Amino acid sequence: MGTTLQQHQEIAAFLRNAISRKEFAPGEPLPSESELCERFHSSRGPVRQAMATLRSEGLISSGRGRRTIVLDTVPTQSFDGVISYSEWCRQSGFEPGQVTQSVTRRPADEALAAALDIEPKSPVVSVFRLRLLNGVPAMVERLNYPLDVGRHLLTFDTDSGSIYQHLISSGVDIDNATRTIDAVGADADDARLLEVAEGTPLLRVRRRAFSSNGNTIESSDDRYLPGTASFTLNTIRGNPSPLSMVSAR
Amino acid sequence: MGTTLQQHQEIAAFLRNAISRKEFAPGEPLPSESELCERFHSSRGPVRQAMATLRSEGLISSGRGRRTIVLDTVPTQSFDGVISYSEWCRQSGFEPGQVTQSVTRRPADEALAAALDIEPKSPVVSVFRLRLLNGVPAMVERLNYPLDVGRHLLTFDTDSGSIYQHLISSGVDIDNATRTIDAVGADADDARLLEVAEGTPLLRVRRRAFSSNGNTIESSDDRYLPGTASFTLNTIRGNPSPLSMVSAR
Repeated sequence: MGTTLQQHQEIAAFLRNAISRKEFAPGEPLPSESELCERFHSSRGPVRQAMATLRSEGLISSGRGRRTIVLDTVPTQSFDGVISYSEWCRQSGFEPGQVTQSVTRRPADEALAAALDIEPKSPVVSVFRLRLLNGVPAMVERLNYPLDVGRHLLTFDTDSGSIYQHLISSGVDIDNATRTIDAVGADADDARLLEVAEGTPLLRVRRRAFSSNGNTIESSDDRYLPGTASFTLNTIRGNPSPLSMVSAR
Repeated sequence: MGTTLQQHQEIAAFLRNAISRKEFAPGEPLPSESELCERFHSSRGPVRQAMATLRSEGLISSGRGRRTIVLDTVPTQSFDGVISYSEWCRQSGFEPGQVTQSVTRRPADEALAAALDIEPKSPVVSVFRLRLLNGVPAMVERLNYPLDVGRHLLTFDTDSGSIYQHLISSGVDIDNATRTIDAVGADADDARLLEVAEGTPLLRVRRRAFSSNGNTIESSDDRYLPGTASFTLNTIRGNPSPLSMVSAR
């Protein structure tokens, strides 16, 4: 694929921005296909493609039989914001912070080796941090990396900022990530750091990140105080939801 | 928009099915753009558009500088499965069940009126059910409808099956939905029905559903036993995630 945006991507980006700036307000109809074609000097194909993209992102209604309308609560999150708590905070207008508990080089146990797709007892680097939101405890973060990735962290001050930015600037290739979201009770470490009772409900986000060629780069476990963070998405009839509920049973 | 699928949608549907049937296996490269063009007698535009759709759904890698590969853990969920627990169970190979606790017609309090976008004290219909997964308690469901929607339920046996299917077949127009996911401790009702201690961490999914013209159709609160359900999604570099983390602070 070329490095320049295709026309449908340009149109989608324009509309996404206009919606996020409320130039197209929630509840109001989006300009018609014909109007968008005229505005972008485009044929119908790219305009329809851009609208399909916005539907898959939950920004506009299905348009079945009527005008397409702009939906309320339209957040999307950049890939950087998905991977990096620091980046997410900044995008959301909050001040991120961190208090490192430990950076550990050790052999992987069975579970971690499976999560990182490496042999048991292979060396890994684990980072354990309390994360702050505007200076207040918000999340307990457990990051694990195979040594060829984690070695970049052994000489890095993990209290100084974003590990993700440091890995990217060290040349680590992070292409995609899987997140699994559930609820869990605070363990003794979580309780101490978040200043709550053991067993307090926390929102847990486990993430595995992969390189372009499918190597596992990271396996992490983030636990948020409820009231600090929740997840929101819109789903539009006719569009499969990329967020899938799965059962452990 | 026409009622027939556009070519990029046909290609996306074909690839989505082939991936879910593991004909294109996780970790393996997807056929190249040229191969796909040949197979579908298509120009590059629709093939690229279909691949963009699959990326936004988290099914394939970003393809930056290399072959695009099929990703692991590729669930997507149909719109019916998002709205209906019964439908989700069936799609996932589980037997859904329900034990109705109450169906209530009452005036909306302030909070519910705001959630349903109606005047306080307007009549609403509320359904409170324990939901089962393969016969075992799995989720506590609280559904609330404005009277013009909920009236279809006042004469319906809510132990007989899917409320969603009943509403659809009654002509209710459900076009899109917003879900907010967080963690909450079991209250006294949750604890009794799910047979756990009060305060046990539950995964909460609050949903608001809307008609094509933006009217609020439903406001609901589902609370899952952890170990019963979690949420999973893939996010690909270059694609905004439709699942956005939001902070209450």
